[in-house]
Amino acid sequence: MPLTVAEIAAKIGATVEGDGATKLNGVSTFEQAGPGDLVFAQSPRYGERAARSRAGAVIAPPGAEIPGKTVLRHLYPKAAFARAIAALLPPVRPAPGVHPSASVAPGVQLGREVHVGALASVGAGARIGDRTVLHAGVIVGEGAKIGADCTLEPRSVVYPGCTLGDRVFLKAGAIIGAAGFGFVQEGEIPGEDDLEPGQEVLDYRRYFQREGPHIRVPQVGTVILGDDVEIGANSCVDRGTLGPTVIGRGTKVDNLTQIAHNVVIGEHCLVASLTGLSGSTSLGSHVTIGGHVGIAEGAQIGDRVLVAAKAGISTGKKLPPGTGWVGIPARPGEKGLRILAASTAVPTIAETVKRLRVRVAALEKALAGGARVEKK
Amino acid sequence: MPLTVAEIAAKIGATVEGDGATKLNGVSTFEQAGPGDLVFAQSPRYGERAARSRAGAVIAPPGAEIPGKTVLRHLYPKAAFARAIAALLPPVRPAPGVHPSASVAPGVQLGREVHVGALASVGAGARIGDRTVLHAGVIVGEGAKIGADCTLEPRSVVYPGCTLGDRVFLKAGAIIGAAGFGFVQEGEIPGEDDLEPGQEVLDYRRYFQREGPHIRVPQVGTVILGDDVEIGANSCVDRGTLGPTVIGRGTKVDNLTQIAHNVVIGEHCLVASLTGLSGSTSLGSHVTIGGHVGIAEGAQIGDRVLVAAKAGISTGKKLPPGTGWVGIPARPGEKGLRILAASTAVPTIAETVKRLRVRVAALEKALAGGARVEKK
Amino acid sequence: MPLTVAEIAAKIGATVEGDGATKLNGVSTFEQAGPGDLVFAQSPRYGERAARSRAGAVIAPPGAEIPGKTVLRHLYPKAAFARAIAALLPPVRPAPGVHPSASVAPGVQLGREVHVGALASVGAGARIGDRTVLHAGVIVGEGAKIGADCTLEPRSVVYPGCTLGDRVFLKAGAIIGAAGFGFVQEGEIPGEDDLEPGQEVLDYRRYFQREGPHIRVPQVGTVILGDDVEIGANSCVDRGTLGPTVIGRGTKVDNLTQIAHNVVIGEHCLVASLTGLSGSTSLGSHVTIGGHVGIAEGAQIGDRVLVAAKAGISTGKKLPPGTGWVGIPARPGEKGLRILAASTAVPTIAETVKRLRVRVAALEKALAGGARVEKK
Repeated sequence: MPLTVAEIAAKIGATVEGDGATKLNGVSTFEQAGPGDLVFAQSPRYGERAARSRAGAVIAPPGAEIPGKTVLRHLYPKAAFARAIAALLPPVRPAPGVHPSASVAPGVQLGREVHVGALASVGAGARIGDRTVLHAGVIVGEGAKIGADCTLEPRSVVYPGCTLGDRVFLKAGAIIGAAGFGFVQEGEIPGEDDLEPGQEVLDYRRYFQREGPHIRVPQVGTVILGDDVEIGANSCVDRGTLGPTVIGRGTKVDNLTQIAHNVVIGEHCLVASLTGLSGSTSLGSHVTIGGHVGIAEGAQIGDRVLVAAKAGISTGKKLPPGTGWVGIPARPGEKGLRILAASTAVPTIAETVKRLRVRVAALEKALAGGARVEKK
Repeated sequence: MPLTVAEIAAKIGATVEGDGATKLNGVSTFEQAGPGDLVFAQSPRYGERAARSRAGAVIAPPGAEIPGKTVLRHLYPKAAFARAIAALLPPVRPAPGVHPSASVAPGVQLGREVHVGALASVGAGARIGDRTVLHAGVIVGEGAKIGADCTLEPRSVVYPGCTLGDRVFLKAGAIIGAAGFGFVQEGEIPGEDDLEPGQEVLDYRRYFQREGPHIRVPQVGTVILGDDVEIGANSCVDRGTLGPTVIGRGTKVDNLTQIAHNVVIGEHCLVASLTGLSGSTSLGSHVTIGGHVGIAEGAQIGDRVLVAAKAGISTGKKLPPGTGWVGIPARPGEKGLRILAASTAVPTIAETVKRLRVRVAALEKALAGGARVEKK
Repeated sequence: MPLTVAEIAAKIGATVEGDGATKLNGVSTFEQAGPGDLVFAQSPRYGERAARSRAGAVIAPPGAEIPGKTVLRHLYPKAAFARAIAALLPPVRPAPGVHPSASVAPGVQLGREVHVGALASVGAGARIGDRTVLHAGVIVGEGAKIGADCTLEPRSVVYPGCTLGDRVFLKAGAIIGAAGFGFVQEGEIPGEDDLEPGQEVLDYRRYFQREGPHIRVPQVGTVILGDDVEIGANSCVDRGTLGPTVIGRGTKVDNLTQIAHNVVIGEHCLVASLTGLSGSTSLGSHVTIGGHVGIAEGAQIGDRVLVAAKAGISTGKKLPPGTGWVGIPARPGEKGLRILAASTAVPTIAETVKRLRVRVAALEKALAGGARVEKK
């Protein structure tokens, strides 16, 4: 159903400049937009492209001039655009009810207006909050507790006993609560795997090279996901060994990411794709972790830390709040960038050092000769 | 059903040297082959091993001598062998029909001879092309369009509205069309996240460290996979934010790979396992990306580029056609390899520089002494 | 059902010091423990924390003094604790039987006391060993052979024809036997992709830049998993091209890990998360591979090797038994660590070299002047 510019402006807190009666029914890019589409200019320098587009209206920040267009003026155009999309193209909510092909065990508590999709399975004793949607093929284990207004997309899995807050969003294939990778080796000497912060991984060698089989440490903890947590497609959050693995309110995890046993993550963090957080690492709040980052066992990441893509954080390392990190092993932001930049120069440095050695040897020879001359 | 050497030769375009009536029913390695097996010699230097094997016949290139064996002579033995396997061991095609345990919504258009496997689910309005096979547990969302002769292996997921060409091959657990990782932070200043090509990721720091929650940008785009595209097991291709994420004809993506929103990939590329392509990156055609490669937002990769395993391509970086890249951050092939090689020498360089400092200081002292002598 | 300290001690081979009649019904950390909980002290230095806890009993090694607590004395407290957890909190075994929503094809052989969960699918001709549990949504392909006492967690997939030993543990979403990433390019010149050990990946450039489409090499091999193998959540083990991909007895693979076609892994190895083993690599026994490690095609890893997290092993590289490796490309342990450490110093070295050049030039000038003086 289309909305007028004025209606959208009211929903997103924008001021209308131009024709508030213009009807919009979609969103688009500058290039693809038609007269029914809303676009947004992230900064004043996009004003010209917005003006050239065929869009029906533009969300733009103060200072962006967009001649000939109806403008929804907003201080934060991208956030405003996000809200406008949600208003114009609200997600299609499946009708409440249990699909006949789903399997719902006895003793399950389903809230009001819950949707259980085709071929989904809910185990005995699980609780599903109001308006939560379990899409096709979702599996919820025995005794799991899912909050209200959650969306579990196709084939996501919640293991028995795990707890999800409200408005949690699991994308397809996400797995919450599998057993962590915890073993002890037959004949392991007490304390030998007892890591000190900063200890090098190669110190493990003796431990790992013992020849006994690995005994699984039963993983009897659980997982707790806070409100508004989002877990990406095919990502994994392992259950704790003892106690829970915890992800705080508002934290968003990208696809194909591994969160190991007893990790504790604060609120409103972002963790990008293909990253691995090893056992018992902790993250504060508002932490940002790039893609392909590896954080080794027990590292402690402070609030508002930024770890750049591909970085490696060593075992037990503590990163102070508000710092940035880059490289393998990671060093503080500017130092790390200097080291990366300098590495480019190493072949040149090697060549220069080689020539300096020749020149210094020549000087030494000459001076030795000179000294002999003087001694005469 | 066995084939004769002559029949196989006709199918793969090879010339027979020896007994064309030999019956073959399988393929094997040199070591494991029996008299019913076909093997192949990749180059003349494998001739002796081929001759020593018990194989019934050998595909071999010109110049490879294989005494005592029936040879199928072909200029490109590996390609010929691939085709011979397909002829000798054609994949078992499940019988057309819908398994009684599958869930097919009203209004689905199934082509001729489609197979819908056990416990598969097809959403309302989806279209499935002729002879396409949906294996057990596959989930196709509402309104998705799947071409002809596709194979969707167990538990692969196609989200609503996505489009697959003909002969597309999804391996188990592949996920097409989940929402991308797109957020805007409350209070984000316009233009602040507006990346320039080559800008360092740590410049993001102020942006990411703002303390508001993250607002999801609704992902209302789609995914388009061209003909003959192949997506690996448990890999993810996110839908676009606006507009589509596109993978061109003939491109092959390995397992556990992340393709983010609005990535555009050309034709006949290879993308290896555990690699991540960030939002809005573009690849030309015939690009090869190694394993564990990370490509940051908006990078543009030209035709026929090769990115070596584990490399990292920075945000907005442009790689010219036909170039090779290596390292983190990636540098052009030979330079990158020189930098990698030189890094091994850094401890030696450090030691040499230390000694040079001592020698230069000694020279300075001696020369200062010498200078004094001369001034006397 | 609670157990007494004496009963647990008997099961784990510990000696009781204190009240053997104390009843325990759980395990915990020092901080969370209550009077019914068992805790463990990994080494004597945890004695004080154990003593301060509210735990009902403590497993502790010789030499650990824990005043006021009942102690189960054991030389290897962590291994003993793992066994105690298994005794106190045995995993809940689903009741034998086939769930009515499951799909079991004709001709399947189910062993005694097998459990087939909700919406699981077993293909024709598959064999499932005694007491094996297939959880909800598991898919076992035609003709697959699963041993006794295996646990296949939700949505794990075993492709047709693969073989699992006894007590194999697949976590949710694990995929055994998808086709590997094997292609040959149209017009590929014989032998051109015929790698020599140690050959650089960039040598592939001509090969990869050929512009023909990629022809899939049909993957007609299989997968064999030994007894007690464990495969992590959403991990992938590809089938062999010819012959099998093999994982030896007791080897444990973490989540989101890629094991390519024709990899052969020995016994009792550990492979951490997000690691990729390329085609035809081989690992000996008791090998430990960290997270995010990449091992290129055909590398051969000896027994008891340790590869540190994030390392990259080049194509065809051979790592001798008992060695440690670190870095990209990986170098032997101590050398690799020296190189990593030295890289931090490169900016300083660059600065020093710059100053040395100036000083050496000044010396050369001075000496040239001095020489002229002497020649006069």
